[in-house]
Amino acid sequence: VDVTDLIRGVLAGERRSVARAISLVEDGAPELAALSAGIFGRTGAAATIGLTGAPGVGKSTLAGELVRTVRLQEDRIAVLAVDPTSPFTGGALLGDRVRMQEHATDPGVFIRSMATRGHLGGMALAAPEAVRILDAAGYGRVIVETVGVGQAEVEVAAATDTTVVVLAPGAGDAVQMAKAGILEVADVFVVNKGDREGAGETARDVRQMLGMGPKRDWAPPVLMTTAPSKDGLGELWAAIEAHRAHMAATGGLEVRRWARLRGEVESLAAARFRTRVSEAFDAAPAIADDLAARRVDPYRTAAILEATVAAGD
Amino acid sequence: VDVTDLIRGVLAGERRSVARAISLVEDGAPELAALSAGIFGRTGAAATIGLTGAPGVGKSTLAGELVRTVRLQEDRIAVLAVDPTSPFTGGALLGDRVRMQEHATDPGVFIRSMATRGHLGGMALAAPEAVRILDAAGYGRVIVETVGVGQAEVEVAAATDTTVVVLAPGAGDAVQMAKAGILEVADVFVVNKGDREGAGETARDVRQMLGMGPKRDWAPPVLMTTAPSKDGLGELWAAIEAHRAHMAATGGLEVRRWARLRGEVESLAAARFRTRVSEAFDAAPAIADDLAARRVDPYRTAAILEATVAAGD
Repeated sequence: VDVTDLIRGVLAGERRSVARAISLVEDGAPELAALSAGIFGRTGAAATIGLTGAPGVGKSTLAGELVRTVRLQEDRIAVLAVDPTSPFTGGALLGDRVRMQEHATDPGVFIRSMATRGHLGGMALAAPEAVRILDAAGYGRVIVETVGVGQAEVEVAAATDTTVVVLAPGAGDAVQMAKAGILEVADVFVVNKGDREGAGETARDVRQMLGMGPKRDWAPPVLMTTAPSKDGLGELWAAIEAHRAHMAATGGLEVRRWARLRGEVESLAAARFRTRVSEAFDAAPAIADDLAARRVDPYRTAAILEATVAAGD
Repeated sequence: VDVTDLIRGVLAGERRSVARAISLVEDGAPELAALSAGIFGRTGAAATIGLTGAPGVGKSTLAGELVRTVRLQEDRIAVLAVDPTSPFTGGALLGDRVRMQEHATDPGVFIRSMATRGHLGGMALAAPEAVRILDAAGYGRVIVETVGVGQAEVEVAAATDTTVVVLAPGAGDAVQMAKAGILEVADVFVVNKGDREGAGETARDVRQMLGMGPKRDWAPPVLMTTAPSKDGLGELWAAIEAHRAHMAATGGLEVRRWARLRGEVESLAAARFRTRVSEAFDAAPAIADDLAARRVDPYRTAAILEATVAAGD
């Protein structure tokens, strides 16, 4: 890979370079440090939107509608659909991008499914790097769509400026949300398929759970949408814009972005250190033997390996 | 905390000491290294069973039935119900332990909900430490029950000798499972509420998805249970025992346990390093300024902080 050429292409907004760069992120390629250095100064302009919810609630359809809304305003927009990779096989499923095909030929729209195949820090580190590539390429809006409501999935969606949680009418969701810590990170709630039975109750449940939680300076609105009839889509976009304006006005946006960036750097350093510890482990069979025979406990073993790595510096 | 006394109590199987020790794990207390050193040599005997699935599929009820089965054999058993803590507020929900209350007065049964309030490595590190405490305390079987089917939740349940995935009849689950990497880690599948409509189809779907995956030396059985009528519960226990016997006979058990232990040590070292990087960050406002102003990119910043930490060694 010619990184200089790749950086030039990304900064020029060339689709092929952007796609290539995101593949490097997925692979955890050694070129990432140079790529990061080359584009970082040109990032920070994009408004990012996280979109999460259980499979089947209609996230992709909503993302498609948000894309349409943004394009009416002539802004460029990218959608990064994060497909969790199994940590056990390295395999990934591609999401259902079919519903966004109407935008496939629009040069102002970039849609990409992403998995991690080798990135050291997993999706939590890979997704923000991919977002920065899209940001540097001039996409003014970036939607990060994640599937699932587990802790890892919610964290990725929450690493954006505005986090939208999509629900379908029905019981159980509320408990699952609370378990995954979604109530705390959602800036906007959407009950999609609003024409179905139980939509009103689900919205009421969410409002009630929010009411029991701590007061925040931004009260997350709970909206209802019905994608086929476009009901509520204007309100959804307005809520996203209102949240962003609120965050910018209160300084919350800068605080949130800085916390994210700093956390990312710390995770990156920890992930690289872990690689070195693993190498030290490989090189010291006696340490492994002591651990395996339960003569030396995990804490002490970790300390010994840390010292081994430090001694190698 | 008198750690020597605590270690003695844990090794003697005293409930109060066990409860206290697990609280230390939740808090990420400084005494953990000493506690770990004191009990590690007395661990490794317990057979561990992971139990995971979406909220509402009946995991707690099944866990209660497994406890009853084990107690008929006069073995001591512990259930560790892992409630994911929101990483954002530190709050945790206690699971529904009500369904296991019939075992509350049995001295051979220990049931505990667990969250992480301060453990450096989050639940992925805290849960195995808690399991070792129960192991050292003489519980021959430890069930680790997690709620949810996200990546983090599945990983915790999979860090056991035998991973049981519980499903309810109904569509959608199969896709969610595949996304979360469950197919790869499940050793036994259970379709609970087997008397409900669609149970047979769900079992067939799972078998079909398993058939499309790679061949493994253990073919995970797909069972059906109906907890109230006790249908299928004997088969479930037999399947768990058969999996364990298979793993012991093939050497897979040792391989799996060693990979887990080694990964834990590496994660622990990485988590501790991250704390030191964070401290270095606090002590170097110029580094933070360069990152915030986007003059120095995250990779370079991480490298600078790593060098700062190394220089302090």
